[in-house]
Amino acid sequence: MNLRIVRYITGWVIIFEGVFLICPLITGVIYGEYDICRIYAAVIAICVAAGMLLKGVGNKNKGELYIREGFVCVSLSWIALSIFGALPFIISGEIPRPVDAVFEVASGLTTTGASILSDVEALSKASMFWRCFTHWIGGMGVFVFIMAILPMAGARNINLMKAESPGPSVSKLMPKMKDTAKLLYIIYIVITVICVLSYFFSGMRLYEALTLGFGTVGTGGFGLYNDSMASFTPLQQSLMTLFMIISGINYSVYFCIVMGNLKEILSFEEVRYYLLIIASSAIVIAWNIFPIYKSVGTSFRHSAFQVASIITTSGFSTTDFDLWPELSKGILVLLMILGACAGSTGGGFKVSRALILMKGARKEILSAIHPQRVKKIYLNGEPIDDEMVRAVDSYAAIYVVMIIISALILTLDGFDLTTNLTAVLATLNNIGPGLNAVGPTQNFGAFSTMSKSVLIFDMLAGRLELYPILILLLPSCWRRY
Amino acid sequence: MNLRIVRYITGWVIIFEGVFLICPLITGVIYGEYDICRIYAAVIAICVAAGMLLKGVGNKNKGELYIREGFVCVSLSWIALSIFGALPFIISGEIPRPVDAVFEVASGLTTTGASILSDVEALSKASMFWRCFTHWIGGMGVFVFIMAILPMAGARNINLMKAESPGPSVSKLMPKMKDTAKLLYIIYIVITVICVLSYFFSGMRLYEALTLGFGTVGTGGFGLYNDSMASFTPLQQSLMTLFMIISGINYSVYFCIVMGNLKEILSFEEVRYYLLIIASSAIVIAWNIFPIYKSVGTSFRHSAFQVASIITTSGFSTTDFDLWPELSKGILVLLMILGACAGSTGGGFKVSRALILMKGARKEILSAIHPQRVKKIYLNGEPIDDEMVRAVDSYAAIYVVMIIISALILTLDGFDLTTNLTAVLATLNNIGPGLNAVGPTQNFGAFSTMSKSVLIFDMLAGRLELYPILILLLPSCWRRY
Repeated sequence: MNLRIVRYITGWVIIFEGVFLICPLITGVIYGEYDICRIYAAVIAICVAAGMLLKGVGNKNKGELYIREGFVCVSLSWIALSIFGALPFIISGEIPRPVDAVFEVASGLTTTGASILSDVEALSKASMFWRCFTHWIGGMGVFVFIMAILPMAGARNINLMKAESPGPSVSKLMPKMKDTAKLLYIIYIVITVICVLSYFFSGMRLYEALTLGFGTVGTGGFGLYNDSMASFTPLQQSLMTLFMIISGINYSVYFCIVMGNLKEILSFEEVRYYLLIIASSAIVIAWNIFPIYKSVGTSFRHSAFQVASIITTSGFSTTDFDLWPELSKGILVLLMILGACAGSTGGGFKVSRALILMKGARKEILSAIHPQRVKKIYLNGEPIDDEMVRAVDSYAAIYVVMIIISALILTLDGFDLTTNLTAVLATLNNIGPGLNAVGPTQNFGAFSTMSKSVLIFDMLAGRLELYPILILLLPSCWRRY
Repeated sequence: MNLRIVRYITGWVIIFEGVFLICPLITGVIYGEYDICRIYAAVIAICVAAGMLLKGVGNKNKGELYIREGFVCVSLSWIALSIFGALPFIISGEIPRPVDAVFEVASGLTTTGASILSDVEALSKASMFWRCFTHWIGGMGVFVFIMAILPMAGARNINLMKAESPGPSVSKLMPKMKDTAKLLYIIYIVITVICVLSYFFSGMRLYEALTLGFGTVGTGGFGLYNDSMASFTPLQQSLMTLFMIISGINYSVYFCIVMGNLKEILSFEEVRYYLLIIASSAIVIAWNIFPIYKSVGTSFRHSAFQVASIITTSGFSTTDFDLWPELSKGILVLLMILGACAGSTGGGFKVSRALILMKGARKEILSAIHPQRVKKIYLNGEPIDDEMVRAVDSYAAIYVVMIIISALILTLDGFDLTTNLTAVLATLNNIGPGLNAVGPTQNFGAFSTMSKSVLIFDMLAGRLELYPILILLLPSCWRRY
C-alpha cells in the first residue's frame, strides 16, 4: 500500500469539501443566519487546514496509483467527507449526536436520503441547503469533479473513477479520462439547471427549486418538509417524476446525444428495460391502489412518482406508501433491490447487473438441457464474456451476504423483520425510506448507535459498489509492496 | 423429446406408489379402520391400472434417455406422485378440496412438512401413516429406489439420479450406479431403523416412533399432534435433534464409513461447516432466548432442536419460535435459506453451494486488488472449476428470482411481507413452518388456491433443485429431435 498518495488525494478531497461548504455559507448570509455562518466559516477553515496538513507540501511525485490505492483513496475520502461534512451539524447543535450527524451527511453524500431527523423543518436554511447540496456533490461523485479540474497524470486516474462510478462497466467514453470527466460534469450541470428552472417556473420558490433540484438530479431524497413532497402541486410532483427518471438513465445516453450518435442510443438495452420496468410497475401499482384514491389520474400520479422515486433510489414520497396494499409494497421492495441504470447517479443493484445475471442464468438452464449448444450472452448488442458474468455473480453474492449480516445486527434493536430488511435495503441501495418503522413518514432516529453505524457502512458500501469499502477490511490490502 | 420413455418411467413410478400405499392399508387394518381401508385398496388399484396403461406393454426398447428426458421424467413423476397420492384424502373426505390434498401430499413427498390442516389429530391412523410415510419415500427419492431394484440399462440412468438428487454434485460413489443406489437405500433404511428403535426405547409408542422416524430421517416435518413435538419428553426431543442432524449430513460420509475410508471423512469441508453452523447458531439463540425460559438447559434444548429442525429443513417444533426475539428469528430465517448438506435428504440452498458462492466471491474481491494473482477455489480439498462456480451462481440467481416472483404472487392474498417471504422460503426450501401467519402454530390453509398452487410448485421445484421443474416451462424442452 502506497500511503503517501492516499494521504495526498484524501487531503485534496477534504480541501474541496471546504470549498463546497462556501455554498451553505452564502445561503446563511442571504437569510441572515449569522450565528450559523460563523460555524460554517470555522468548518471551512478546519477542512482547508486539515486537508493541507494531510496532503503535505512540495514533492509532487507520490508514486504509482494502482487499483488497490484507487479503492482505498475513494473509500477513505468518502468516509472523511462524511465526518468533516457532519461538523456544522454537530457544532451548531442542530444534530448534537455525532453518529446522527455523520449518518445524515453520509446519507446525503451517498444520495440515500434516509434521515434521523423527526422534524426537518426545524433546520436553519444554511444547514438545509448543505444537507441537500451533499446529494448533488455525491450524485456525480467527487472524483469525477477532481479529475475534471485537477492536473494529475492521466492513465492512473481511471482507477479512481472506476472505484467511484456506479455500474458494472465504465466505458471509456472519450480517449482522455479528463475530457470524459469534464463532459460528464457539464452534462450533470446542464440537467441540474434545466431541472431547477422547470421547478422554479412551475411555481416553487428559488430556494425550494434549488435544493429539491439537487436531490432530484443526484437521486437523493432529502425533502424540505416533514411530509416530503406531499404538499406540492400535481404538476410539480409530475415534473419531479420526470426528472428522477431522467437522472436514473445511464449518462452514456446523454454522451451519445452530445456527440450526435443518436443511432447508438437505441442499442442501450439496459435503458429500454429500465423504462419498461417503470412503465409496467407504475401501471400495476396504479391499478392496485385505485380503490384508495378513487381516481385514475391521482392513482397513476402517486404510483408513477413512487416507482420513479424508488427505482432511481431517490426516496421522495408524495404519500405514505406504507399504507398501500401488499402487492404494491412488494413491487416497491423489488424495485428497491433493482435500482437504476449503471452509469447514472442512482444506486441499487443496477438494471444492467440484473440483466447479466438473468441472461447468465438462462444460458445455464438452456445448456443443462442442450449441452451441445454453446451460446454467448449479449448486452447492449455487445458480447459479455464469462469473466464479466462471474464478476456480476460474485457481486450479487456479496450483496446478499451484506444484506443478511446487516439485517442480523439490526435485529438486536428488536424491530420486526420487514423494518430491518427494508432499512438495510433502503441504505445499501441508497434509497432512503423503507417500510414499517422506517416507512416514508418515519425516520431512522430510533435505531441504536451500533445499528446506525452499520447503516452508515451500508450507505457508503452501496454508493461505492461494495468493493472499495470492503477491501478496507482485508488485511492483505494494507500490506506493503 | 422422447415421450415414449417418459411415459414408460412415469408409469412405473405410479405403480410403485400403488405398492407404497399398501403400508397405510395395513395400518388401517391393524387399527380396524375398514372404511378407510376400502378407499386405500381402491386407490392402489387405480395407481396400478393407470401406471400399466401409461407405461404400455411389450417392446422394451424405448429409445435413449438423455439429460432432457431425465429431467422431464423426474418432474412429471413427482407431479404424478403428488396427485395420485392425494386421492385417498380426497375420496375419504379427510381433505375434501383437491388443491389442499395435493398440497399436503406434495408437502409430504418433498419433505417440506407444511400443512393446510388446522387439526391433524382428526386424521385416521391410516391417513396419518400415509402422510408421514410420504416423507420417507420422498426423502431419499423414488428414482434411487427404482434404480436400486428395476432392471434398466446402466449408464443412462445417471440422468435420472442427477435430476433427483439434492446438491450440486452427485459424486459417482461406486463404479455401477445400481450398486450406488442399492447401498444408498440400505444406509437410508439402517439409519431409519436405528432412529425408530431409539424413539421406541425412549418411551414412544411404536406407531409414534415409526411415523416420526420417517419424518426425521426424511427431514420432513409432519407432526402427529397439533403442537408438533412440544408434548414429548426432553429426552425424546433431544434424540430427534440428534437424528435430524445426522439426516442432514451428506450421505457420502456414511458411504465412506461403510467402505472403511475413515480418513476421507475428514476432507468433507461441507460437513465441518454444517456442524459448525449448527453449534454456533444453537449457542447464540440459546443465549438470546434465555430470558424466556430462565434455564440454560431448556433454552439450549429448544434452541438446538429448532436450529437442527430448520437447517435440515425438517420443520418440527418444540415451542412457538415465532414468539422468540428478532435476532433468533433472523438467524432461523437465515438457516431456512441455507439448508442442509448436499447429498443428504435435506433441502434448501445447501451448505456446499453457499461455500462455493462465498469462495468465488472472495476470489473476485481479492483479484480486484491483486489482479496479477490467480487463485483456484477448493472444496473438500478438490479444485472447483469456473464452470461449477458459474453453475452455482446461476442457481442462486434463479433461486432468488423464484423467491421474488412467488412472494409477489402471494401478496395478492393480503398477508404481510414476513408471512409471504417465509411462506415461500419454507416451501421452496422444503422446511415447513415460516413466521407470522405461517408460524409453527399456524398452517397454510388460509392461502388462496392460486397461492397454494404457487407453493406446491415451489415445493416441487425446491425438492428437485429448480432445473427439472423449470425446464418443463421451456418450449424448447418439448421440441422433437
